[in-house]
Amino acid sequence: MAKDNQFVSQIADIEEDFPQWYSDVVLKTKLVDYGPVKGTMVIRPYGYAIWENIQKQFDLRFKESGYENAYFPLLIPMSFMTKEAEHVEGFAPEVAVVTHAGGEKLAEPLCIRPTSETIIGTMYGKWIESWRDLPVRMNQWANIMRWEKTTRPFLRTSEFLWQEGHAVFATAEEAEEETQKMLSVYEEFAKTCLSMPVLTGRKTEKEKFAGAVATYGMEAMMHDGKSLQSGTSHYLGQNFSKAFDIKFTDKDGTQKYGYTMSFGVSTRLIGALIMTHGDKRGLVLPPVVAPVQVVIVPIAAKKEGVLQACAALKERLAKAGVRVLLDDSENSPGWKFNEWEMKGVPLRIELGPRDLEAGKMLVCRRDTLEKTELALEGAEAGIAELLSAVSETMYERALERMNGRIVDAETLDALLDGVNKGNFVRAGWCGCRACEDKVKEFAQATSRVFAKENNAKNCVACGKKSEHTVIFARAY
Amino acid sequence: MAKDNQFVSQIADIEEDFPQWYSDVVLKTKLVDYGPVKGTMVIRPYGYAIWENIQKQFDLRFKESGYENAYFPLLIPMSFMTKEAEHVEGFAPEVAVVTHAGGEKLAEPLCIRPTSETIIGTMYGKWIESWRDLPVRMNQWANIMRWEKTTRPFLRTSEFLWQEGHAVFATAEEAEEETQKMLSVYEEFAKTCLSMPVLTGRKTEKEKFAGAVATYGMEAMMHDGKSLQSGTSHYLGQNFSKAFDIKFTDKDGTQKYGYTMSFGVSTRLIGALIMTHGDKRGLVLPPVVAPVQVVIVPIAAKKEGVLQACAALKERLAKAGVRVLLDDSENSPGWKFNEWEMKGVPLRIELGPRDLEAGKMLVCRRDTLEKTELALEGAEAGIAELLSAVSETMYERALERMNGRIVDAETLDALLDGVNKGNFVRAGWCGCRACEDKVKEFAQATSRVFAKENNAKNCVACGKKSEHTVIFARAY
Repeated sequence: MAKDNQFVSQIADIEEDFPQWYSDVVLKTKLVDYGPVKGTMVIRPYGYAIWENIQKQFDLRFKESGYENAYFPLLIPMSFMTKEAEHVEGFAPEVAVVTHAGGEKLAEPLCIRPTSETIIGTMYGKWIESWRDLPVRMNQWANIMRWEKTTRPFLRTSEFLWQEGHAVFATAEEAEEETQKMLSVYEEFAKTCLSMPVLTGRKTEKEKFAGAVATYGMEAMMHDGKSLQSGTSHYLGQNFSKAFDIKFTDKDGTQKYGYTMSFGVSTRLIGALIMTHGDKRGLVLPPVVAPVQVVIVPIAAKKEGVLQACAALKERLAKAGVRVLLDDSENSPGWKFNEWEMKGVPLRIELGPRDLEAGKMLVCRRDTLEKTELALEGAEAGIAELLSAVSETMYERALERMNGRIVDAETLDALLDGVNKGNFVRAGWCGCRACEDKVKEFAQATSRVFAKENNAKNCVACGKKSEHTVIFARAY
Repeated sequence: MAKDNQFVSQIADIEEDFPQWYSDVVLKTKLVDYGPVKGTMVIRPYGYAIWENIQKQFDLRFKESGYENAYFPLLIPMSFMTKEAEHVEGFAPEVAVVTHAGGEKLAEPLCIRPTSETIIGTMYGKWIESWRDLPVRMNQWANIMRWEKTTRPFLRTSEFLWQEGHAVFATAEEAEEETQKMLSVYEEFAKTCLSMPVLTGRKTEKEKFAGAVATYGMEAMMHDGKSLQSGTSHYLGQNFSKAFDIKFTDKDGTQKYGYTMSFGVSTRLIGALIMTHGDKRGLVLPPVVAPVQVVIVPIAAKKEGVLQACAALKERLAKAGVRVLLDDSENSPGWKFNEWEMKGVPLRIELGPRDLEAGKMLVCRRDTLEKTELALEGAEAGIAELLSAVSETMYERALERMNGRIVDAETLDALLDGVNKGNFVRAGWCGCRACEDKVKEFAQATSRVFAKENNAKNCVACGKKSEHTVIFARAY
């Protein structure tokens, strides 16, 4: 049997080489593997189960918000992409193009969807006739292709999985309101399901979605202080309705263009939760989306009654809705502890002959490594409470880190110093593109979102009057 | 308000023009629409909800059978396809090819997966090392691309959605057994969830999956007597393990190739259930997968208490797990009856002032159009019973039709007469390809599966000794 500490020694030191730690963790816990084509990933069962739990949680929320799921074609005629000028400019460099099919050269090249505004817009233009048809709210779970130069599993891959919501309203006000509403659904999800605090707000023109009037994003702080854009909600105005003829006859009998919005999150969220919560031992998974919430490790498994008691406990917890696994493999308990810690299972139950005699079990939390004794009787309630406690502690800890690492800067030097130390930096901005570019060049930091309170006095780059208070950060 | 019979007049006569009936029904009930690229479809919310219910039911069954979901890349290097000779021959003519991406010509063209044996095989070859790793069972829900010349929504489209299961075993026996087992899972699903009887059995060499040792299929009889291949399970032997180096170290220390199998069903199942159960009024949806199982239509909705009582009933049924919809639109009850009949909702509840007074409701079954009075008290149990009854009756009716339409033939003329009358024809076959081709040429019928009982004496085409008793039919 290998040494019990071999798991930790398998992964790079999280403080010394965070990028390597990330690669080690995602590969060694079998969340993901590299695909044969450069920039692609294979999502293995342990990773895909997280995605399924994310989907389940979002589906509940989207449905409550009036969205229905649908499925639109993967291939989009190149001519559709060019109908919205900004859109094609933003996405054309990243698309993968199908030129041949069925043994023949195609009359028109088709691109693999980098996002679906153009094809969904085309269908909405066909379906929507009257104000009675509005609002329209649909969501699609799909694969997306964006050809990227530098890729990392979950964070940036040429193909990824996502959801994209697309809605049409009769008025600008409704569409703008929906844009905010879906952003708040994302924020609530991040907190409740991923135990992940985020900053939300509007993005600058430079950072917005190609074709949007306004993009709002949620940004999460990773372990290294860098930011990860974790979800976006776009107010599209009439840009796409005019390009795709999404018109309706209003109550007054006149033809009007609708107002559209869209929003999306992707498998990137899995990268976000790994880099928000992980520690030197590996993954720390938020209970709501963890594939396995509780692992039971038998102690002295060969002693009479131990395995049976573990199996009975597993049945009870499963019946109570807990995702529970009994590790009855032949590895040593120490090996199992380390393996399941690396895999980030929120709670580990240790159950041996002495525990059974005392009618108790030992429960170890992955987030704090604290051990608690719980009575076997009524274990269901005790475990449910502990899972909630883990969710809350993980959130509070991440929130505390983020809040403790947001600093203000009035000069470029201070901004650079701030991001060098792994902070988000709040600073004034005059609103001009040149100053935004200057910050990027000087500090390799980009504007993430406008801060909630706009109280900066001067632009951090040019010193002129500030128009917006911006959160700058290095970002994934 | 339009005439109440306008719904029926919208769709072609099912007996006179079945293909047109099909197109009318799928479009007018908003299951699907044509996509902008030829041969593609848009699955609209009412159609996608059926697919989601199909997925849910299969996920339960696959999980019980030891399968875990995963996700593999969409794009496959062309060189992978050519590693298994039969496989590339079968699929190369149908693939869509990406030649450019990220603004550059690719060094190697990539094909969009027409099925994933090659890419999953590559990863299995990397992951599997020892007999301890076996068996491996994974399933993928994904989009698939096969460039087809003639397409029809759900039945044959260039892009479709499906699941593909892929498993590896140490021995041929285990892999063969699994092939049969998953076929039986399909058969049970078809009966339980789609109320659809099927014939299962092995396929001929001509009809098998490209690269398989043996393909087993399930065939369902459509309203017009034609057959629809609704699911297949393939025993792949060592064909793919040798092509993709899926090797393991066995207990005796030697390196061996694994034995693989795969199985799949697709959105075609939606076409299958439409054409199995539909009638002149439109869809008749099987309760287990129907997006809406029960629609409540208020009678004299403006009378005091009616809408409230309908809403309360809806709440109760929803709480009991029924997918229920209250149609409180301003259309007339007659209009609503026809609309929901066309959309195939299994049960319609009519509730008006007189019913309320009597503490009753009227329930109309979509399958038989029978009306039953049920007490409002305890409605949950009554509705659950009726939904089960609808499932059973639909199955029995379809089974009776199929069994009544399987005829025997000893000559080509008899076979032609049989398929002309909309039958499946059971006939002897000597086993040679020329005779199979002759049947196709003479009667436009193909071999579907080997019959369970091999009792035919002579080949229907050449008259020589029969080797297999085959079900021949015209097929979609």
